[in-house]
Amino acid sequence: MEYTHGGDIYTYDGMLDFSANINPFGASDEVMQAAMRGVRRSEAYPDPWCRKLRRALAEQQQIPDETLIFGNGAADLIFSLVFALRPQKALLTAPSFSEYAQALRAGGCEPSYHYLREEEDFRLTERILPLLDESVDVFFLCSPDNPTGQVIDGALLERIVRRCGECRIRLVLDECFYEFMERPACAMSGGDVQGTPWVFLLRAFTKMHGMPGLRLGYGICADSELLERLQAVRQPWSVSAPAQEAGLAALSGQERIRETRAYVCRERKWMEGRLTEIGVKHYPSSANYLLLHSEHDLFTRLLERKILIRDCGDYEGLKRGYYRTAIRRHEENVRLLTALEDIYKER
Amino acid sequence: MEYTHGGDIYTYDGMLDFSANINPFGASDEVMQAAMRGVRRSEAYPDPWCRKLRRALAEQQQIPDETLIFGNGAADLIFSLVFALRPQKALLTAPSFSEYAQALRAGGCEPSYHYLREEEDFRLTERILPLLDESVDVFFLCSPDNPTGQVIDGALLERIVRRCGECRIRLVLDECFYEFMERPACAMSGGDVQGTPWVFLLRAFTKMHGMPGLRLGYGICADSELLERLQAVRQPWSVSAPAQEAGLAALSGQERIRETRAYVCRERKWMEGRLTEIGVKHYPSSANYLLLHSEHDLFTRLLERKILIRDCGDYEGLKRGYYRTAIRRHEENVRLLTALEDIYKER
Repeated sequence: MEYTHGGDIYTYDGMLDFSANINPFGASDEVMQAAMRGVRRSEAYPDPWCRKLRRALAEQQQIPDETLIFGNGAADLIFSLVFALRPQKALLTAPSFSEYAQALRAGGCEPSYHYLREEEDFRLTERILPLLDESVDVFFLCSPDNPTGQVIDGALLERIVRRCGECRIRLVLDECFYEFMERPACAMSGGDVQGTPWVFLLRAFTKMHGMPGLRLGYGICADSELLERLQAVRQPWSVSAPAQEAGLAALSGQERIRETRAYVCRERKWMEGRLTEIGVKHYPSSANYLLLHSEHDLFTRLLERKILIRDCGDYEGLKRGYYRTAIRRHEENVRLLTALEDIYKER
Repeated sequence: MEYTHGGDIYTYDGMLDFSANINPFGASDEVMQAAMRGVRRSEAYPDPWCRKLRRALAEQQQIPDETLIFGNGAADLIFSLVFALRPQKALLTAPSFSEYAQALRAGGCEPSYHYLREEEDFRLTERILPLLDESVDVFFLCSPDNPTGQVIDGALLERIVRRCGECRIRLVLDECFYEFMERPACAMSGGDVQGTPWVFLLRAFTKMHGMPGLRLGYGICADSELLERLQAVRQPWSVSAPAQEAGLAALSGQERIRETRAYVCRERKWMEGRLTEIGVKHYPSSANYLLLHSEHDLFTRLLERKILIRDCGDYEGLKRGYYRTAIRRHEENVRLLTALEDIYKER
């Protein structure tokens, strides 16, 4: 099987990796130390209920403990959702994160796509609303979207949520990148889902807390029957001991989140300015990555310069010429932009 | 959902845990150090192909790299197998590891059971053979079995493998405990499966290498099409970075495996002798645990003495009165046996 994601530093060794969208400062010392403690506790099975982490996160989000579910990364929960829901008809926007379609196909469901328009910067509009009818079983939505960085407008999201409720559509709202948004608002808060049990909020520790190798994601949902089914379609010990400990420590890192967010937003604006100067087409993003379009084969040309970006030509709804780059530390971003400038000058 | 396994030290705090079947010496320093290295590498996504671990294990087992698949513990692979195979009819022996049935039900398949007989010490006999016909899609078999510790006779296994091939039955042979057997033979070696692509060997690092909290299991199968399907029904990053590093280090610990095996076999014999003296009914085991039967409520009575064993009353094919205990270090085993002696004396 082909691997169709960023972060493939194992195939592309020794690269400066802009292809994975991770906190440019990596994991905090506290998270690392906690994961090491988790290693030392790994001579026992991990707690299947992630009790400590559950309690702490529920308190932080001010939601009941039992509305939380944890997974071996958010991707684990995407597959579990499909196996638990067994949808006949699933709606996806395109472009968006490719694992939704992968999971749906694994569950025997060929997804239907709503194609976002390039001329609208791939923004979701109210054209989605009439597509949400009783025939749809599940709708996967990502905000900020991956790979575009587009956030769903709050008023539109409210209408989508309402409509999904009316039409008995399960809405999976993937907020794995919301912590990078300039205004620290998630599309929906944990508290919001209490009255909308058809909504499943998907979150990750991976990106903001810089720990993709540990695998920890979670969901918030007020539908206890769905959460039961999710437990039933997978092993009891999905979440490792190091991941549980790291997650617990990450919850204390709120100041670091604010600093990272401010840094990433500043860098994003700087990069957008430089991209405009150089003449690289880019799209408005609210996340820690930018979608680019270029006539140049940026993937190959940057690879020659030991820089790895994500070639988005294989995304449903995109085509050859689209690329995604993470926002990293300033000196690294300078290196990327200098390389892009060189490529564009050589033209 | 109810948790139906051993090792639940999170509900039963401060217990001497005989309910999980783990190497009594825990993980080696090398494995722990390697897992810590893995934590430090967790700021990047883990290698979806587990390339280093794959290469090393393939070399050790003398099999081609591409016959291996890794999972987030062996339990992860059991669920993936069911979602990849989508069996209509699945055959299980009873009693056996309960996750097979759990996974099958998650995939919409109600398992058929072949009940092993108490009067035959729950040994698998050739009575299984006529049940293996064209109507069966998958047969899960565990050797040494969990919770009985019974090993399948080599000649019978050969006939089972042949028959499964003739009847186009997928045979999943779970060898998660084979490294504890006195004669260090697995029911089938990795090399054996090359000519029998309908056989899937399931193995774990969890038990012998004392790392259940890290989650690492693997499968060996010569059916490349099945392995492709297994990749397709799950996320690319199932195996964390700490687990991959720990697994790699564990492969160098062959001397430790031999020592652990010798120790466990010696302790098992000592425990069997003491159980006989005390009058606790037990069954012949080739693994690092023993199945007991008692008129006493051993679970509760031992709990009062801060000792946790596995109550096997909920196993399909067993009933109230069956218990499983791990084999731990001598001084711990003495504590268990003394407690049992007390309980039996009080009668």
